[in-house]
Amino acid sequence: MDIAALKTDLAGLQIEVNPRIVQQKSRDFYWYSPVLKRQLDSVVADVVATPRNLDELLYILGSCWRNDVPVTVRGAGTGNYGQAMPLAGGLVLDLSGMARILSIEPGRVIAEPGAILADIDAAARASGQELRLSPSTYHTASIGGFVAGGSGGVGSIRWGGLRDAGNIIRLRLAAMDGTVGSLIDLTGPDIAKASHAYGTTGIITEVEMPLAPAYDWVDMIMSFPTLEGAIRCGEALAAADGLLLKNVAVMDASVTPYFKRHAGYLTAGEAVVVVMAAPFAAGDVVHLGRHAGGRVVFRSDAEAPETLKKLPAAFELCWNHTTLRALRVDPSITYLQVLYPQPDICGKVLKIAELLGEEAPTHLEFVRFDGAVGCFGLPLLRYTSEERLDEIVALHEAHGCPIFNPHRYTLEEGGMKQTDATQLAFKKRADPKGLLNPGKMIAWDQPDFDYGKPYLFPSLSV
Amino acid sequence: MDIAALKTDLAGLQIEVNPRIVQQKSRDFYWYSPVLKRQLDSVVADVVATPRNLDELLYILGSCWRNDVPVTVRGAGTGNYGQAMPLAGGLVLDLSGMARILSIEPGRVIAEPGAILADIDAAARASGQELRLSPSTYHTASIGGFVAGGSGGVGSIRWGGLRDAGNIIRLRLAAMDGTVGSLIDLTGPDIAKASHAYGTTGIITEVEMPLAPAYDWVDMIMSFPTLEGAIRCGEALAAADGLLLKNVAVMDASVTPYFKRHAGYLTAGEAVVVVMAAPFAAGDVVHLGRHAGGRVVFRSDAEAPETLKKLPAAFELCWNHTTLRALRVDPSITYLQVLYPQPDICGKVLKIAELLGEEAPTHLEFVRFDGAVGCFGLPLLRYTSEERLDEIVALHEAHGCPIFNPHRYTLEEGGMKQTDATQLAFKKRADPKGLLNPGKMIAWDQPDFDYGKPYLFPSLSV
Repeated sequence: MDIAALKTDLAGLQIEVNPRIVQQKSRDFYWYSPVLKRQLDSVVADVVATPRNLDELLYILGSCWRNDVPVTVRGAGTGNYGQAMPLAGGLVLDLSGMARILSIEPGRVIAEPGAILADIDAAARASGQELRLSPSTYHTASIGGFVAGGSGGVGSIRWGGLRDAGNIIRLRLAAMDGTVGSLIDLTGPDIAKASHAYGTTGIITEVEMPLAPAYDWVDMIMSFPTLEGAIRCGEALAAADGLLLKNVAVMDASVTPYFKRHAGYLTAGEAVVVVMAAPFAAGDVVHLGRHAGGRVVFRSDAEAPETLKKLPAAFELCWNHTTLRALRVDPSITYLQVLYPQPDICGKVLKIAELLGEEAPTHLEFVRFDGAVGCFGLPLLRYTSEERLDEIVALHEAHGCPIFNPHRYTLEEGGMKQTDATQLAFKKRADPKGLLNPGKMIAWDQPDFDYGKPYLFPSLSV
Repeated sequence: MDIAALKTDLAGLQIEVNPRIVQQKSRDFYWYSPVLKRQLDSVVADVVATPRNLDELLYILGSCWRNDVPVTVRGAGTGNYGQAMPLAGGLVLDLSGMARILSIEPGRVIAEPGAILADIDAAARASGQELRLSPSTYHTASIGGFVAGGSGGVGSIRWGGLRDAGNIIRLRLAAMDGTVGSLIDLTGPDIAKASHAYGTTGIITEVEMPLAPAYDWVDMIMSFPTLEGAIRCGEALAAADGLLLKNVAVMDASVTPYFKRHAGYLTAGEAVVVVMAAPFAAGDVVHLGRHAGGRVVFRSDAEAPETLKKLPAAFELCWNHTTLRALRVDPSITYLQVLYPQPDICGKVLKIAELLGEEAPTHLEFVRFDGAVGCFGLPLLRYTSEERLDEIVALHEAHGCPIFNPHRYTLEEGGMKQTDATQLAFKKRADPKGLLNPGKMIAWDQPDFDYGKPYLFPSLSV
């Protein structure tokens, strides 16, 4: 790695060496996890480069190739797994300067990777359209970062996740193979070579995403005397094929006190279902909620505009914004990511809620998963120690509920705990020197890794 | 029943007494079923009235009430179960004269019941929208008739059926209770009082339906060496939450010879999957089809406009248009309606295909059903006798596949084989004299009916 030569090479481009800014751009929201906070706190790049267009980006990659400098790509830095953090130092490639929206057509948008999701939607709105899927960091996250590091979120109740066929139409990728200018278009199953790969297999230079019709979504909160009632309502809403919903979440009574600005609408001791519904579906949501024993305590279409201005949108109570709201009040809180599989989602959730009680208040997000109703848990976790965290992970797994561990910075440990052969094979071709985001793909570093223990990238302290 | 007094009352309105026209307007497509053909062939009204607006409609109902004349409502007469046929004579209320489209907004349309589905879509197209669901008789069926007598069809792969919350927003109903002018708006679960009730519980005078975004749907046919391959592909497509599809059907090799105008694209001895896909989803459909061992033999976006003009649309190869195409070639053919339940849809279909062979070539329509992938069968049936038909029904049921019998003219026997308590209770209020479509709701005529034998309305010959 010849950083000095690299800096000389990049003179005239937009680069940053100010230590404070470099440190800031070397971080994401990894600190949601106390484990990652400990492990990654000292991670820092040598230099940050912000290309303004594709030519600059390709030039930067060429220079890093020649000088053997690792490249860790960064969108808006809203990830939670350290995916944009340069474990081996080197260059952080900040794509916020490549944010053009290139075309919007019926059902699709083409954008540069740095485009912010909310900006894409603002542009798509002119044709009555919007993105299908977005994280709760919608206002700040970039489309490239979402594709490279996310998995779904708001909209998954209708469309499934980013991994599902059709939710990404095409990715254009710059390889890190010394052949400056060689761009690869990925479609169909090939998209999996670069989606959710944390930029380890190439740099996404352009994305083509499907668009859905935009509606004036109605935010609704329904209150239930019991967690079970709220879960049953959430599951019934999730199964209602004819109801156009954009999000369905369930929070137990211990979670809602963190929804400070909605306090006036909420009842202590009650669980809630938070829903985003199309205007013409809201009436049926009310019927379904009542049938499940709940009552509507908030709906955005019944509030004055000045009231709404003071409230976060429903999706900003959901997914990892639920965690964020709790963290702001109690910094000892973190979270988990659980899959509650069919059948008897409700029984599994209640069993684990009973076992963990106030240590892990229930937060569920319903989705479509392989053509059926799926349920992810993002329980709040009153963190005490890594040992106890591991026990809680094991407890979920012992009850048939897999964990996608948000306290791990590698692709494998956060997900399937096995080598992704497709991504590994592709990386051998697209990044033969292994310069892209080192340390994030265990299969590259240690093909025979034993997933019984956590992976530690050599440069990180224990 | 005082028909003479009724005719006097209705002088000046649009009524029809010409026997040939009255006979024609007393019929629907009941003749798809040899059983219904035998039972209903002599059914005929005394008079047909075609109101031009709500006032006329209400006046007609009032006169029928005063003169105790049965009223059987008719949309476009495209039903297959005799639902628009006046078993007790009296008046056929032809709603084709009330066909205005009253309003189109984002996500919803309000129309009079006689509006033709294709006409609603033509009007909605201006705002980039279309109906979610339609039967294969889309070009001729009315929205009121679809709601009163249909169950789903094209679009159900995405939205489920008409019975599912959200797929009908509101129905306005004229009761037959002597209080001329009393209209009832039904929303939410109350909609079930009048949807799929064959007009036995009131006359639908206005419908409000949800709209989906309109796309230039790509018609695709994929060919497979085996039926199993086609079923596996159909099921995978149906489970793909991120693929925007409008219809997914599977036909075995014995069915496709009836697709005369597509003969040049089809391979003898091969099964097919017929798909309607959004333009941006077509590429992924190809990938999925290939993965399942199939190949694309037709896609509409690769054909010249003059070629397409000579071909029926994909949806006109599907649902009961599959049956119609076979019937035109071989009038001895009829059909069944089967539900293949989860799990192992494919195993159940193949087992029954093996047992019945050429007597009942496989035709499947995939749908969303209670939040999961569902599969309806509309097998062609080489009809020999009613006894054999009953045997075939029993054989399906013995293998765990319920039959929605299209050879029955009552609500109960075509569906759940039990009293619909909601519809019955509502009818007692909305039609206290039992004048609306007599003979179609067994629970009204014989509350203690034994569903072990077929129901025969007294006026019909055995």
